[in-house]
Amino acid sequence: MKPIRVGICGLGTVGGGTFNVLTRNAEEIRRRIGREIIVEMIGARRPNPACDTSAVRTSKDVFDVARDPEVDVVVELIGGYDVARELVMTAIANGKHVVTANKALIALHGNEIFAAASVKGVSVCYEAGVAGGIPVIKAIREGLAGNRINTVAGIINGTGNFILTEMRDKARDFADVLVEAQKLGYAEADPTFDVEGIDAAHKLTILASIAFGSPLQFEKAYTEGISKICPDDVKYAEELGYRIKHLGIARRRENGIELRVHPTLIPEDRLIANVDGVMNAVMVDADAVGTTMYYGAGAGAEPTASAVVADIIDVARTFDSPASSVPGLGFVSDELLDLPVLPVEEIESAYYLRLDASDQPGVMTTITGVLSDAGINIEAILQKEVHAGEQVAHIIMLTHSVQESQMNRAIAAIEALDVVSGTVTRIRMDRLD
Amino acid sequence: MKPIRVGICGLGTVGGGTFNVLTRNAEEIRRRIGREIIVEMIGARRPNPACDTSAVRTSKDVFDVARDPEVDVVVELIGGYDVARELVMTAIANGKHVVTANKALIALHGNEIFAAASVKGVSVCYEAGVAGGIPVIKAIREGLAGNRINTVAGIINGTGNFILTEMRDKARDFADVLVEAQKLGYAEADPTFDVEGIDAAHKLTILASIAFGSPLQFEKAYTEGISKICPDDVKYAEELGYRIKHLGIARRRENGIELRVHPTLIPEDRLIANVDGVMNAVMVDADAVGTTMYYGAGAGAEPTASAVVADIIDVARTFDSPASSVPGLGFVSDELLDLPVLPVEEIESAYYLRLDASDQPGVMTTITGVLSDAGINIEAILQKEVHAGEQVAHIIMLTHSVQESQMNRAIAAIEALDVVSGTVTRIRMDRLD
Repeated sequence: MKPIRVGICGLGTVGGGTFNVLTRNAEEIRRRIGREIIVEMIGARRPNPACDTSAVRTSKDVFDVARDPEVDVVVELIGGYDVARELVMTAIANGKHVVTANKALIALHGNEIFAAASVKGVSVCYEAGVAGGIPVIKAIREGLAGNRINTVAGIINGTGNFILTEMRDKARDFADVLVEAQKLGYAEADPTFDVEGIDAAHKLTILASIAFGSPLQFEKAYTEGISKICPDDVKYAEELGYRIKHLGIARRRENGIELRVHPTLIPEDRLIANVDGVMNAVMVDADAVGTTMYYGAGAGAEPTASAVVADIIDVARTFDSPASSVPGLGFVSDELLDLPVLPVEEIESAYYLRLDASDQPGVMTTITGVLSDAGINIEAILQKEVHAGEQVAHIIMLTHSVQESQMNRAIAAIEALDVVSGTVTRIRMDRLD
Repeated sequence: MKPIRVGICGLGTVGGGTFNVLTRNAEEIRRRIGREIIVEMIGARRPNPACDTSAVRTSKDVFDVARDPEVDVVVELIGGYDVARELVMTAIANGKHVVTANKALIALHGNEIFAAASVKGVSVCYEAGVAGGIPVIKAIREGLAGNRINTVAGIINGTGNFILTEMRDKARDFADVLVEAQKLGYAEADPTFDVEGIDAAHKLTILASIAFGSPLQFEKAYTEGISKICPDDVKYAEELGYRIKHLGIARRRENGIELRVHPTLIPEDRLIANVDGVMNAVMVDADAVGTTMYYGAGAGAEPTASAVVADIIDVARTFDSPASSVPGLGFVSDELLDLPVLPVEEIESAYYLRLDASDQPGVMTTITGVLSDAGINIEAILQKEVHAGEQVAHIIMLTHSVQESQMNRAIAAIEALDVVSGTVTRIRMDRLD
């Protein structure tokens, strides 16, 4: 059979890794699919010293690759939004299959991209965009395809998980660990994208669409970062038997879906609570199979390349019958349902609350009374001295599940109490059961 | 598009689950693949009270299903070896695609079955055969297809994992927990298949073939059960920072592959060490992606049905172009390599050793001297009093990695010492790093 000819656009970390994996494992790959996959062309402004590309045609203009008649599959690894979008649309217009690791591109422009690909009868694959080398897109779109999926919850940003792990293991401050993460190359100079949850929201947006069969709705995702988490909260959570993780949660409700990224207390005996450092994991709860989890490296040159190459192999396996490939969002395009994303006020969650209150008789009764009046049940209470001799105590409460709007009202009422100083710290909690 | 017509053979636990999942999620499935999957026919000696099959054609003879002209996909869920083999071969001969949950069938007769399927151009899918609802076959054959896979290590028998978990959590005896597992329905009246590792060896045989691209070689697998594990060993392992799990391990070596099922000490901070109860997990180490892990329910009606239905959906997606389906063992059939399975004497492993020795000066030096003379490095030593006042101590040692034959000689030498009574208990150890 004719080889599948790949054009790699972008030869940075992931592009270089992809080139090297395709080259090094060419024979293993040929044994798997019965035909060769060759790198036909590379589009990159600079060479990558980690790659010997001397035998490959190159261009400084990635659009040359997207238009090249000898290229079957365009691999978009330039990142960013606008140029990447134009590049992918050009490739599709030229009848090329597309493989990308660009979660932002898919989360923001995926609906348009999949529509164009559908018209041209080409595949757009993006396994590498979510949780790096973990084949979780495949697991959801194919492995769990017999299920009605209820919840997807994932640690899908390695930077954030590294920071929270260090904060817990070494009782360190957020700011302090962030500097270390930057030194280690785990966090960017401007870490906003990772620590404020935007990157995780891109990935969650994709996971939600393939889980529920709805269009991509990034702009509706609720996103909250980890920069406000204090060591005290990490410690108190621990004492109560919980870990704080930065989770992306997509959950099917009767009247729509929840789509939210925020720090979350989860019981320490859940397997996902023990996913530490830069590792990623995605938990899926579905009606037939129950809970499954997928764990691995969420970033890095070759882990990400592993997913890119798996996508290329998928394209190769269905190359002569593209109709048999899995649809972009895992559901046939005209079967996508416009499921509304619920506003954050309408989500349901249990909560961890921390507040400063006067350390005097009756205060606890007053505070718990406010929650009780709001119909909120308390699961656990912890009272901690802040500084010896001071008349202020940290009060920590875990509540049962309520609607966020209900909790907002209760928190406002607590903050209005004379005996309470400052604001109430609120971290959502999920039992994941 | 024409519906895909399924014939279910066997309507027991998994057959009933499959029928119910296909029926309940029919609409979700149709949205995914753009065509209907319908249960055309059922072959079963008895109805299943959990299933309303009144609208479906039935036969008491499963071979009627394998030959029925209206059936596209035969789902073999009768279990066992001989009749199942004949049924599957009949279905293939009649040009049907086959989906099965029967690991024993695939491990023992898979080479013959895949060869026949290849000639007829039909698929034989068996995701449900390994680790129940966890889509690990798909992960390895497709999700990690760009990798050269080095190691697969899995907790792939829920009964065994339940027993070991209970032994650890409650310091109970094997025999005692086994009775409870039987009461709970987790273990059969004759538990040999599960506790002696035969079931796990079937699954491991399949995992090894799809990981390395070699024919199925069940008869070469080394299999050791958990019935000899004592509470003392569980406790000592714990003190040393390890958990004992019944692992299936397939590992690529320079001169062949290791294929072995046995109790294994693994460091407690590995995620897989924390997979408890009846749950399954499979860890894969591969050259590009590094370590990934797949976790979920390894048995049960609907978890297993989840995998069966995913396979049916895969068949449906490539129904009009069967050449685009993934080959049976993940590699093109004429590209399978006859990798030799190493005899257990040639595997390399670290070890946990426990022995009874006289509690007198110089004994430890004598014993460690034997290991040292055999070129075996000791990583940790623990000495434990057995009964107060007695002159015998339990000595526990963890060694570095050596060849098993070397360890056999060292153990023989230790057992020959006057100061050592009885035999040396040996449990293999794996850092899984």
